[in-house]
Amino acid sequence: MARTRITELLGIQYPVLQGGMAHISDAKLAAAVSEGGGLGIISAASGDTEKLAKEIDTARQLTDKPFGVNVMLMGENLDAIAALLAEKKVAVVTTGAGNPERYVEMWKAAGIRVIPVVPSAALAKLCARSGADAVIAEGGESGGHVGEMTTMALLPQVCDAVDIPVIGAGGIADGRGVMAACMLGASGVQIGTRFLMATECTIHPVYKAKLLKAKDTSTIVTGRRLGHPVRSLKTPFSREYARVEYTDISDEELEKLAVGSLRAAVCDGDEKRGCFLAGQISGLLDREQPAAEILREIMQEAAALLNEVKAWEK
Amino acid sequence: MARTRITELLGIQYPVLQGGMAHISDAKLAAAVSEGGGLGIISAASGDTEKLAKEIDTARQLTDKPFGVNVMLMGENLDAIAALLAEKKVAVVTTGAGNPERYVEMWKAAGIRVIPVVPSAALAKLCARSGADAVIAEGGESGGHVGEMTTMALLPQVCDAVDIPVIGAGGIADGRGVMAACMLGASGVQIGTRFLMATECTIHPVYKAKLLKAKDTSTIVTGRRLGHPVRSLKTPFSREYARVEYTDISDEELEKLAVGSLRAAVCDGDEKRGCFLAGQISGLLDREQPAAEILREIMQEAAALLNEVKAWEK
Repeated sequence: MARTRITELLGIQYPVLQGGMAHISDAKLAAAVSEGGGLGIISAASGDTEKLAKEIDTARQLTDKPFGVNVMLMGENLDAIAALLAEKKVAVVTTGAGNPERYVEMWKAAGIRVIPVVPSAALAKLCARSGADAVIAEGGESGGHVGEMTTMALLPQVCDAVDIPVIGAGGIADGRGVMAACMLGASGVQIGTRFLMATECTIHPVYKAKLLKAKDTSTIVTGRRLGHPVRSLKTPFSREYARVEYTDISDEELEKLAVGSLRAAVCDGDEKRGCFLAGQISGLLDREQPAAEILREIMQEAAALLNEVKAWEK
Repeated sequence: MARTRITELLGIQYPVLQGGMAHISDAKLAAAVSEGGGLGIISAASGDTEKLAKEIDTARQLTDKPFGVNVMLMGENLDAIAALLAEKKVAVVTTGAGNPERYVEMWKAAGIRVIPVVPSAALAKLCARSGADAVIAEGGESGGHVGEMTTMALLPQVCDAVDIPVIGAGGIADGRGVMAACMLGASGVQIGTRFLMATECTIHPVYKAKLLKAKDTSTIVTGRRLGHPVRSLKTPFSREYARVEYTDISDEELEKLAVGSLRAAVCDGDEKRGCFLAGQISGLLDREQPAAEILREIMQEAAALLNEVKAWEK
């Protein structure tokens, strides 16, 4: 597993990408993951090109290794961000919420590897046809924005649909998940939730404490009604949102409920108003550790599992 | 994988259970699966003890191999069904929707292996403490009644929570899924949707035709509002149910909508009123074949994958 189509494509040691988490994945986290042998990813979700340019520069000071930037295709200031990424020639761009078709040519001309996140085999096919270098098949057990398909069902169907390498995401936090994704046909994995516990991840301590306390059933999906479902920890905020979501509350009022909730979680650790994005695999988290140690541990588990498997009879 | 704690516990050739599907899993299907080396399971969902007794007798005429019966713990006529199963000394009982605690002693005294389906690590623990021989950790990508957890996230967390063997279910239809479940810690798998395509499965031909046409995104979950979410193919019925589910329709009217919808699908192939239960893995189905061939094919794929893995470097 250590050498795969993805490690070859991206020139990295381990086939592990760190998820681009809005308002969380910054230069510090991304550089730590890349230094640790995976592919760190900076989130461009703020929509602020100046800030993003600085993050990219900072990451380059922190590591010589390749890293990526994640762009939500429904975000603000998209054209300017896309142009900045081409200008900065970042190693990898991952995209969410659609087909990055209109930017692919520009990015590839800048030497960028383009890897869209896809929630279905159909979008995987479209992205491959548009020139994507790989796709990330992400199941709805992940934290943050989620689709309806799950990793176990989505991954093999995406692998059957395209010839480019497929990266599995959603519900993966240890060596077992890495090997399972492998069996389903993935050449690598993307991990978000577990990297929230990285020492270099600067979310509020209350956020980390809540993750450590989480069980398997501690997350909830809200926002389906407005077409932007997200998975987060069950908190007073998310429970209240879920309670009112299907009442006669107006779309505007519902939308207003969520404004600032991400920042309230990430920056303030505000348990009442914060939306603490997290995946179903949160229950496995048991401590804070440096990103490099997380990567090493996961890959050691995967290697040990591989050794076990080699001893199996048919 | 071929010999696991589950094949040992149940005395079967392959570590594959066939899901107990309401109004679908009868003696004919169950016997075909057991004859093919897996564990066939008859559904007791009708609540009719006389009918169930006949199905058990019929299955015994069709196979000498062990088979099981699935009981929904929120079903009707439960005490009588539980007593019948003890009297008939069926090899295995799987249960849904709760902890079968109050029947475990009686069943185990009759030599029955008791295997509850669990949607969380907490229920897995409770069931283990109640004396369950194994648990089935079922993710919500499965067809029929679903929980919120997915297989990828649930399975390792259940494996960490209990010492008894764990069976993975939800989103598994081929050798890749079997091996992935293995990597996550499972000693076996339960497969429902793929067995809908078994020659011996007597659902209406329209049902099978719809399954063959299904893509990865062809299913939908309805019924969350009333607390009984089920996953089925997107059809005029399920789309209409989803459309009205969160309007001001009363609970009674909503409930009435679904009455008879399962039978309309299974018996009549009624595309308008039928609820065609199916999992997210439906997109992988490509033909009808005998149950024994399905089992052989899945296990051959798993063995081939295992061989591939053995050739990997670390």
